[in-house]
This record gives sequence, C-alpha cells and structure tokens, in this order.
Amino acid sequence: MSFEISDVLLEEIKAHISAGNDTALLALFEEVHFADLAETLDAVNWEEALYLVRLLDSETTSEALMELDEDVRERLLDSLTPKEIAEEIEEMDTDDAVDAISELDTVTQEAVIGHIEDEEHRADIRELMQYDDDSAGGLMAKELIRVKETWTVAGCVREMRRQAEEVTRVHSVYVVNKENELIGRLSLKDLLTSDTKTKIAEIYIPKVDAVHINDKAEDVAKVMQKYDLEAIPVVDDDNKLLGRITIDDIVDFIRDEAKEDYQLAAGITQEVEADDSIWELTKARLPWLFLGLIGGVGAATIMGGFEDILKDYALLFFYTPLIAAMAGNVGVQSSAIIVQGLANDDVKGSIGNRLIKEMFLAALNGLILGIVLFGFTAIWYGDYKAAMAISISLFVVIIMAGIIGTFIPLFLHKRGIDPAIATGPFITTSNDIFGILIYFWIAKMILF
Amino acid sequence: MSFEISDVLLEEIKAHISAGNDTALLALFEEVHFADLAETLDAVNWEEALYLVRLLDSETTSEALMELDEDVRERLLDSLTPKEIAEEIEEMDTDDAVDAISELDTVTQEAVIGHIEDEEHRADIRELMQYDDDSAGGLMAKELIRVKETWTVAGCVREMRRQAEEVTRVHSVYVVNKENELIGRLSLKDLLTSDTKTKIAEIYIPKVDAVHINDKAEDVAKVMQKYDLEAIPVVDDDNKLLGRITIDDIVDFIRDEAKEDYQLAAGITQEVEADDSIWELTKARLPWLFLGLIGGVGAATIMGGFEDILKDYALLFFYTPLIAAMAGNVGVQSSAIIVQGLANDDVKGSIGNRLIKEMFLAALNGLILGIVLFGFTAIWYGDYKAAMAISISLFVVIIMAGIIGTFIPLFLHKRGIDPAIATGPFITTSNDIFGILIYFWIAKMILF
Repeated sequence: MSFEISDVLLEEIKAHISAGNDTALLALFEEVHFADLAETLDAVNWEEALYLVRLLDSETTSEALMELDEDVRERLLDSLTPKEIAEEIEEMDTDDAVDAISELDTVTQEAVIGHIEDEEHRADIRELMQYDDDSAGGLMAKELIRVKETWTVAGCVREMRRQAEEVTRVHSVYVVNKENELIGRLSLKDLLTSDTKTKIAEIYIPKVDAVHINDKAEDVAKVMQKYDLEAIPVVDDDNKLLGRITIDDIVDFIRDEAKEDYQLAAGITQEVEADDSIWELTKARLPWLFLGLIGGVGAATIMGGFEDILKDYALLFFYTPLIAAMAGNVGVQSSAIIVQGLANDDVKGSIGNRLIKEMFLAALNGLILGIVLFGFTAIWYGDYKAAMAISISLFVVIIMAGIIGTFIPLFLHKRGIDPAIATGPFITTSNDIFGILIYFWIAKMILF
Repeated sequence: MSFEISDVLLEEIKAHISAGNDTALLALFEEVHFADLAETLDAVNWEEALYLVRLLDSETTSEALMELDEDVRERLLDSLTPKEIAEEIEEMDTDDAVDAISELDTVTQEAVIGHIEDEEHRADIRELMQYDDDSAGGLMAKELIRVKETWTVAGCVREMRRQAEEVTRVHSVYVVNKENELIGRLSLKDLLTSDTKTKIAEIYIPKVDAVHINDKAEDVAKVMQKYDLEAIPVVDDDNKLLGRITIDDIVDFIRDEAKEDYQLAAGITQEVEADDSIWELTKARLPWLFLGLIGGVGAATIMGGFEDILKDYALLFFYTPLIAAMAGNVGVQSSAIIVQGLANDDVKGSIGNRLIKEMFLAALNGLILGIVLFGFTAIWYGDYKAAMAISISLFVVIIMAGIIGTFIPLFLHKRGIDPAIATGPFITTSNDIFGILIYFWIAKMILF
C-alpha cells in the first residue's frame, strides 16, 4: 500500500507530462503495481493517460489496461496503432489478451493479431477467441504448468522453471499422460519433499477436479466456490488439458453478477456506473420507468372504473398509494428471497410447497399489518365499515403480492429465464395494478 | 465432480444409517470432499447428520461442518459433547475454529477450549477470539509458512516441510527477521530455481503488501481484489507477522456483502434464506412493511387535505399510484447507482456536482415521460388542462425523486452510515410521500 494516489502526486505527474519530463515519470513509475497505475490512468485526463501508456513499458501498462473501465480502455486502445496494441497484448496473459482484443472492431482485431510476434501466443489467442464469453472457455487462460507422468521430479522441476516464466502465478501443477489427457495434479508440498529421482507417476494425486470447455461460467464459479479452489483445469470432450481458470477471474465474475442482479432489482437494465454519461444512464433507466408509466396508467384506468363509489367513499381513494406500496414491497421481498435462493441452489421442493409457505408467511404479515391499519383508520376516521374494508383488502392484497412475488421468479427460472429480472420494477408494477384492482373490488363488496 | 448427491445415493445413505451399517458408510465417504459431505449433511435429517458426524473422522467432518448453514451447524454442535466438539475444532484451521467456537454459548466455549489438546492451537484460538469479526483479525488464520532471512534455501525447504503439514495450502512464504517483523516474501519459483546453499536474505522479495490487524474487513477485501492477491499477511503496530488472510474467506465475504446489500434494497433487514422459518422471515420483513404502512397513511392524510378538489378533478386522484410509483422507481434507480459507486470508490467529486448531474438526468427522463403521459391523458380524457397539470407534476416529481435518491445515500455515507440501507423501502416510502405532496400542490396551482 505504499503507492497512494494523492492529489499532490497527481499534480506532480500532470506537471511532468506537460513538461515532457520522461525521466522523472519513468523513475516515478519504475516499480509501480499495475493496479496503482490503472488508478493513475483513470484519474488523469485522456491525453495524459495516452502519454503514459506510450511512455511506459508494455510489461507495466498491459496489466494496468486490463484493470481500467471498459470504455476508458477502449478509448485508449483506439488511439494506439495496431502495432502498439499488439505490444501490449504480447505482455498479457492469454485470457486478458482475448478480452482486450474482442473490444476492438474486427478490422483492427486482425491487424493487431497479425502484429503479435510470439507465434504460440497468437495461436492461443485465436483458439480462445472461438469460445463463448459466458463459458469456461471464455474465462480460461492457456498459461499453466503441465508435467508428464513419465518425468522424474528433477526433470519436472527443470521443466517447471521454463514454463513458470510464462505463468504469473503457479497455482497448481497439472499432470498429463502422453496423449495430453489430464490425469492428476501435483502438490508443491510433495514436489518439495520427494527425492529428485522419483517418477511423477508415483507421487501425483490422481483426483483432480476439472471443468469442460463448454461449461457455463456460472457453473464454474459455483464449483470453484464450493470446493474452495484457486484454479481449475479446463478439458475438452476427450479429457485433453486445454487451459485453466484462476480464482481472480471468478472473483470478478461474482462481483459483476452481484452488481447486475442488484441493478436489475433497482430497475437499471444495463451495467452502468455513477460516472457514465447522462445519455448512457438514461438508456439504462428509461425502459423500466416506461413500464412504471404503463402500470400507473393501468391503475388510473382501474380506479376510473370505480368512480361511482368516489362520492360516498373518497377515503378509499386516499388509501390507494398505501395499497400499491404494500403490494410492491411484499412482492419485492418475496421475489428477492426466491431469486437469491435460486442463485445459491437453496430452493428445493416443489413450486406448490413454496407457494403454500409464502401464503402462510404473507398471511401472518398481512394479519399484523391489517390489524394495525384497522385500529388507526377506525379511530381516526370513526368509520368502522370503511376501516374494515381497507384493512381486509390490505390483508388479501398482501397475500396475493407474496404469491405473485414467489411464483414469477420460480416460473421464469423453470422456463430458463434469469429470475433476477423479476425483482424490482417488474414485480412492483404488476403488483401495483393487481393490488389496486383487488382492493377496490373487495372494498366495494364490503361497502355496498 | 465425481460425487453427485442423487436421490438414489441419498436413499442408500439413509438406509445404511438406519441399518447401522457403519462399514458401508465409511467406505462410501472414504474419499469424499468436505463440500460434498456438507451437502449430504444438509440433505439428510438432523439425527442422520448427527450419526454421520459421530461416525466419520473429525478430519473429514470438521471442514464439512464449516460449509453448513450456521443454524444447521449450531444444532449439530449443540448435540455433541464439548470433547467431541474439541475434536472437530482440533482439525480446523484456526480461523474456522474461532468461527465455530463463537457460535457456542460462553460456558460451552470454555469447556471446548479446555478439551483442545494441541497447546499451540489452543493459544492461537484464544488470540484470534479477541479480534473483532469485521476486522482483518477476524478474518485471519494463524497457519502460514514463515521463514527467517538468515536461513539457507535448504534449511528453508526443510522448515517448510515441517510447517506445511499444518497449512492446507501454501499460498506464499513470508520472510521475517529475528524480531518476527515481516520483511518480505519468497516466491516458490525463486525457491525452486536457487542453489540450496543460497541465503534467503539474497533471494527474497522485499516488497510485500500487508494489512494491519485492526483494518476493516471491507478494506482488506478491497486491497486483495485490487491487487489480485490470493493471500495477504496480517501485521500489528510493530510490523510483527501475526497471520494471513486467504482469498476463499474474501470470496465468502464479498458474497455475503452483496447478498446483504441486495436484501437491504429489497426491504429485508437481516440475512435470511428461502428455507428459514416463517417466523424468521416475518421478523426480517415486517419492519420495512411497517415503514411502508406509515408512509401510506402519510400519503392518505396528504390526499385528505386536498379533498376539496376531488369533485372537480377526480382524475388527479386516479393518477396518484402512477406518481408514487414513478417517484419510487426513480429514487431507487438513483440511490442504487450511488450505493454501488460508493462501494467501489467510484464516486468522486463533490455532492453538489453529483446532485446537479442527477438533476439534469432526471429532467431528461422526466421530460420524455411527461410528454408521453401528456399525449395519452390529453387524448384519452380530452382535458388538456388536467393533462398538463398531471404531466408537469410528474416532471417535477421525477426531478425531486432523483435528487432525494442521490442525496440520501451520499449524506448517510458522509455520516459514516452504510448507504445501502437507503435503497429500497426507505427511499420508496419517502419519495411516495414527497411525490404525492408535490403532485397535488402543483396540480392545484395549475388548475385553480
């Protein structure tokens, strides 16, 4: 934590850039961690960032580039020549390289790949580009330590030294047979404690978890979390070792998923950040607001249909926001619990049982809230009949809201649709409309 | 993924338990992964789980216990004697051991600790129990590989072998001086590639990130994510090496935090799961529903104050759910973006600038939605004046809702309160009330 991006330091950097004082800059960033450099690139303006990327070593800048926001990175890369981009790519691990390249337009992509000098790196990148983003193939890197079962410990250590130069961090050593089929893994402990002449075949651990190249990213994340793995090998149909996925990519994946779910629940349809432009933010927010608008017009139309009771019971109309809010809140609560339960594979048993449980739960909540509301309205307005009508309606609306909030995500999940979309505005809007309809209908029955 | 908890397997396990067929059970679970065993313990009933815990080796069950839901684990541990619990604890890493012990009542805690035979383990646990749950000390484990700078590579490897027996996974090797002050780390690569007579002092990497024992868990998570660390050492005021925190604990922490934020946004006040009891779920849900009830009563009271315009403009009352819903939705959107931005340290600049940006954003959204609503209501009801009143109010309400949704989380954050509490019911309720008040007030001004 030695490098703290203070305002003073930032001013110093900016001054050096405008003075073209490269020596000072190079000294300043000599041993910088890529995450700190990324923070600097994010804090200075765009021309200054470009200046730094051009000045500093690709070894330093390539990893920093991958830490930047996608739009900042895109803008920077767009200003570099394909050759300059290729130099950055050359220094990246294959998984990062593919992520960076796929953000470029197809013409530039080809030009950049053509400029990559290391043939193996180029081939690896081409291979990884075929895989789906949301699959194990999309997350994996080609860099790994691979040893053959026929080697001795001494030969293995020698080979590992060579391979380790390309691998940033040695998580695991994977053991393959001569057909390159994954047959086990080697613990560093065993490697350290075995005689140098021992054959790998004698000391490797034959039990190794692996994922298939086409497995969904979500499932990979679940497996790695469940088994507390820091890396997992990726194999194809024939169990041939293709690459590995490391925990840092999974951490990013988990965070992104959580962010997305949170935003869906809050009615934001695409990944946006507080710092995005007003236009980006509007595009992300407007669709759900339109849905809310349509719901509100629907509610208004329903209420218009009950205009005849307005002169006798204006009170009922004053309580529509309460009914709508409660229907919305209960629906969001129920759906959030189901959505999270589904995400964690916690929801077992039939839909029917879930709905029955939710019905009892909502009934309990509805009873408590209904009694409180009855007490208040009966005393405040002195109209017991109206108070009864409002409270009983609230009770029924809460049960209905709970059932809808439980059913919709379960239903979407069964149909293979991400249930997270069902929390937030979707549930709120449908519950608003149904809630108000049921409310007036029951109240009218009781009062007339 | 060889072990799949199928219904068939589960029936088999249950049959073996009821027949008391221990040999078959021991064979079945001989090489089971603790995560799979945890899934089994979760799937069978409580007496069966207890039977398995008693039957199987503590080495196998202790880690599985830590994977269980807190309430399931608590119930199981409650049925074990302190001595039996101590046997499980003995097999756990110190961080897990402390988590398990702190769930017991204080009397049992002392009895369990008294039964731990390994003196060092007992002392470590006592030490860790002093630290705050939400601090680096609360996350760290005492197990780590520690080498002295004065050692040679050969001596180091010898010592590592001994220490490695207690450490499940070797993440990093930390180098200390003779005062046990952390001075660097050793890469396994360098260790593998150096001559056995080389002094550690010559090959260690003096740059090592560390966190302080009292650092907040949240900050530790941020640092480890930022620098893609898989483990980080923990030091005290004097830079003495106390323990280390591993990424799997951080992954759990990130997931729990995301879950908590999501639930707060959905109006659920404590961590609950879909499978919790109706009473647990009610306790988590009712407080926010009460808030909604109070908000609804507030809205009804405001509307009652505008009863005089009811006979001329009943239409206005039909549109209150729409206004309330839009105010709520916009508020939740704005606050969600700010809450996430704050969590990621993305929100820079002054509160004033944020509010101005949000004002423009809300004005753009409000303008679009207001025009659409005006078009619809003007044509549908043929009352241009009323349509104008409703649409202009909507426009103003949306701006206000955006500002409140932006301001409240920023304000809470400044006051040191978790802003996540501000998304969801809190914002919705306050925006409902303010929205309806402003709506009637503006509409009345325009129409009368």
